[in-house]
Amino acid sequence: MTVSSLSYQDRADYCQAPIAKQLLQLMDEKKTNLALSADVTSAQQLIAYAEQLGPEICLLKTHIDIIEDFTAGLTQTLRRLAEKHHFLIFEDRKFADIGNTVKHQYEGGLYRIADWADLTNAHSLPGPGIIHGLYEVGRKKNRGLLLLAEMSSAGHLMDSAYIQKTLAMAEQFPDFVIGFITQHALSTHPHWIYLTPGVKRDAGGDSLLQQYVTPEKAIYEQGTDIIIVGRGILAAKDPLTEAKSYRQQGWDAYLKRRKAG
Amino acid sequence: MTVSSLSYQDRADYCQAPIAKQLLQLMDEKKTNLALSADVTSAQQLIAYAEQLGPEICLLKTHIDIIEDFTAGLTQTLRRLAEKHHFLIFEDRKFADIGNTVKHQYEGGLYRIADWADLTNAHSLPGPGIIHGLYEVGRKKNRGLLLLAEMSSAGHLMDSAYIQKTLAMAEQFPDFVIGFITQHALSTHPHWIYLTPGVKRDAGGDSLLQQYVTPEKAIYEQGTDIIIVGRGILAAKDPLTEAKSYRQQGWDAYLKRRKAG
Repeated sequence: MTVSSLSYQDRADYCQAPIAKQLLQLMDEKKTNLALSADVTSAQQLIAYAEQLGPEICLLKTHIDIIEDFTAGLTQTLRRLAEKHHFLIFEDRKFADIGNTVKHQYEGGLYRIADWADLTNAHSLPGPGIIHGLYEVGRKKNRGLLLLAEMSSAGHLMDSAYIQKTLAMAEQFPDFVIGFITQHALSTHPHWIYLTPGVKRDAGGDSLLQQYVTPEKAIYEQGTDIIIVGRGILAAKDPLTEAKSYRQQGWDAYLKRRKAG
Repeated sequence: MTVSSLSYQDRADYCQAPIAKQLLQLMDEKKTNLALSADVTSAQQLIAYAEQLGPEICLLKTHIDIIEDFTAGLTQTLRRLAEKHHFLIFEDRKFADIGNTVKHQYEGGLYRIADWADLTNAHSLPGPGIIHGLYEVGRKKNRGLLLLAEMSSAGHLMDSAYIQKTLAMAEQFPDFVIGFITQHALSTHPHWIYLTPGVKRDAGGDSLLQQYVTPEKAIYEQGTDIIIVGRGILAAKDPLTEAKSYRQQGWDAYLKRRKAG
């Protein structure tokens, strides 16, 4: 039996962080490994997408700091929609500072990220102090952290030594770090959850060096768990039909991988 | 003649970015290489420090996203104080995402960083796309960017190959990238400006793996240009006296370095 033959539900048993269990279980229950990257700049638009596409996704990924008309009411509405449609919320903050600073950035300010985002992410680049700082705020609220192991942008500086050090850092916080932003599975431990950004039906890129992979490549070939799709859905004529199609492709790739084991 | 014997004013002639010239010139005119890291969570407190300590500093470093009661009026007040006391404003955002995302984060959202911060900073980790994205927003507003080459936190993953790649990336944007967050001077080119965080009279650290260096060590021994002092000043009984003392130490170290050449 290999990790890739296990169901998400089976892997939930190996997780120390309750939010990781919850995510893996809801993926199997809801039959979706699709995360929506909702990169919009209007609160109303964000809510409309969460309402319309919420039934298709396991995760809603936000950039709360690009919303032009943010109010605390927005995050309350997102929480309500997360309950209604059974998805988790992942604020893609990419924390990247020393422990003492990220603690304040995660807990406070106008956005109070730790109060409403089930998951957030951080770069391992500043060393383990960044995880310590986030842990102090997030652990007691039952939040989870993803570390960035590999980005989807061309020319990134995350070489294999960097990825191994990131994995080693994650292993020090098994009840808080739940997985990675990555293009490939990184380990044979079944509790890590791998999320792949930059997923689009047609490979290629944008003018700012983003590079795309297909759902099949991410899940089946590269062994990751969750496809993060943004412009592939939002720029489509009919986002709902497109989301259903990505959901199906992601799920088919998961079933194919389990069979291939 | 070596770079370390040049005055800040002399080096301004080598800069392609107008904001870099302006910073180097004001440092010599005002005789200060002190940056205040104003890590407070109240707008009123931030304004009070900018008013009181503004005359001592060349740069006010902010974390706008930890302010609990942010309004657009705060950044207007900070701009007014920057004019009055002749300092620049550096929002320590540590951008760390792909180009298309940082463009929105820099320009928009509630904070509209590009509208009021003369300088901001970014990690080179995602590759050159991050600089392209920030450039599209900041260059036309005459802003400047600092890249993070070395952090002050223990166990950071910025090895010498990482630093060299960061330097090479900066060289592609000489009219926008003005220098580095670093513990050491990185090159013999006189136009780069080096800012050192984690400066404190007494070396040591905090419980979240921050490590401190002294002003003399940063400027004289390690050849950097600007000392960034936070808790060393803000946690003192008399912040103004303490700021004057750091200013003097930083300036003395600069004069000593120029003499030693």
